[in-house]
Amino acid sequence: VIDIIAFDADDTLWHNETLYRGTEKRFQQLLAAYQAAEETEQALFQTEMRNLRLYGYGIKSFGLSMIETAIQVSKGRIAAYQIQEIIDLAKEMLETRVELLDHVADVIPSLAQRCRLMLVTKGDLRDQEAKLAGSGLAHYFDHVEIVPDKNVEVYRSLLARNNVAPQQFLMVGNSLRSDVLPVVELGGHAVHIPYHITWAHEAVQVPHGNQGDYAELAHIGLLPAYVEGLCRPSK
Amino acid sequence: VIDIIAFDADDTLWHNETLYRGTEKRFQQLLAAYQAAEETEQALFQTEMRNLRLYGYGIKSFGLSMIETAIQVSKGRIAAYQIQEIIDLAKEMLETRVELLDHVADVIPSLAQRCRLMLVTKGDLRDQEAKLAGSGLAHYFDHVEIVPDKNVEVYRSLLARNNVAPQQFLMVGNSLRSDVLPVVELGGHAVHIPYHITWAHEAVQVPHGNQGDYAELAHIGLLPAYVEGLCRPSK
Repeated sequence: VIDIIAFDADDTLWHNETLYRGTEKRFQQLLAAYQAAEETEQALFQTEMRNLRLYGYGIKSFGLSMIETAIQVSKGRIAAYQIQEIIDLAKEMLETRVELLDHVADVIPSLAQRCRLMLVTKGDLRDQEAKLAGSGLAHYFDHVEIVPDKNVEVYRSLLARNNVAPQQFLMVGNSLRSDVLPVVELGGHAVHIPYHITWAHEAVQVPHGNQGDYAELAHIGLLPAYVEGLCRPSK
Repeated sequence: VIDIIAFDADDTLWHNETLYRGTEKRFQQLLAAYQAAEETEQALFQTEMRNLRLYGYGIKSFGLSMIETAIQVSKGRIAAYQIQEIIDLAKEMLETRVELLDHVADVIPSLAQRCRLMLVTKGDLRDQEAKLAGSGLAHYFDHVEIVPDKNVEVYRSLLARNNVAPQQFLMVGNSLRSDVLPVVELGGHAVHIPYHITWAHEAVQVPHGNQGDYAELAHIGLLPAYVEGLCRPSK
């Protein structure tokens, strides 16, 4: 019996990666005088990975890494007004309205009538709070956990804090690396719902063997039928 | 009887404002060719306030606002390598080791033997998690709450979530605006321990009348005597 259904947020409940990729396209155009788009893409990814330990996830980290990449790629020739354009790109991302994925607006309210729901998202606290508020879904979640990273240790302490055994916990998300594999490793349940694009950092080779203990659904609209009868009737 | 003693972190447990002001001095020097230090200080504060709604608190927000201010103050003449210097200032802040305030290393372990302790801090999730980990104090806190802001609503939901009545809650911190007044307004207890400098955004005029229902201590070393006998003996 499932006690809590937990959801990832970015690219599971609302679009996110498309926003980053759209901004990245404009960033590549801004640097087109200096190098080809593919090289800029690689340089930015390398900067992001180098800065991840210091910056963590989120739009402000992405903005700072874009600026650093622009200086590096242009060999210091980029003009200040172009740096301001990059800052404005980041601000525009922060202002972007949350756009729910298909089915989410029906599925979450319907599941909330039957199960305790939790949101588990990593990233920038300010960004995620704002997106949750803008989604109109906040009141359907009994618990909201914004964590710096999603690994086995983080899930373990999150379950302990909420008094849930792994066997009573179901995690739903688009990332095998962050939403599925660590939960399965703990003995919990997971549903993988792929998004049409995956950030390179989240891409993972699924190891052979015992790791396949999760379900894969094509879209979140299929989730209610999948969890039918799994939730505690207490709610 | 107090059930939980909650502590603010920045400038209550460890130094923070000195780090920001030290960086700001170097930022002013970097822009000395364009304008006087006092004007740069004001311009930066205005940029920070304008960006606060979008960016929230923390070092990455501060870094982005420094870059924007530099472009504005230099009227776009600032060189890319100087922008990189500003990015490096922000990175240096993120790398800075946590420095505890006097008495904290004794007071927190000693209080933890008698009371449930909570940490309530606003700011960037990644920054605050890293500072808590670096402080060596993490395991003394039964609860850690990193919140986007500290107002009456946030404290109300935090108390509800942790099942504590305001009368059983004592908040300790350096900011009247964030740590003391909202808690007192809810009917909770508060101890104000001023830090030697206050960020302009946190400065507040204490209204006359009923708002003085809190204690003021000169330093945190005086806290154990103040709370003596106040905690539930259960722990």
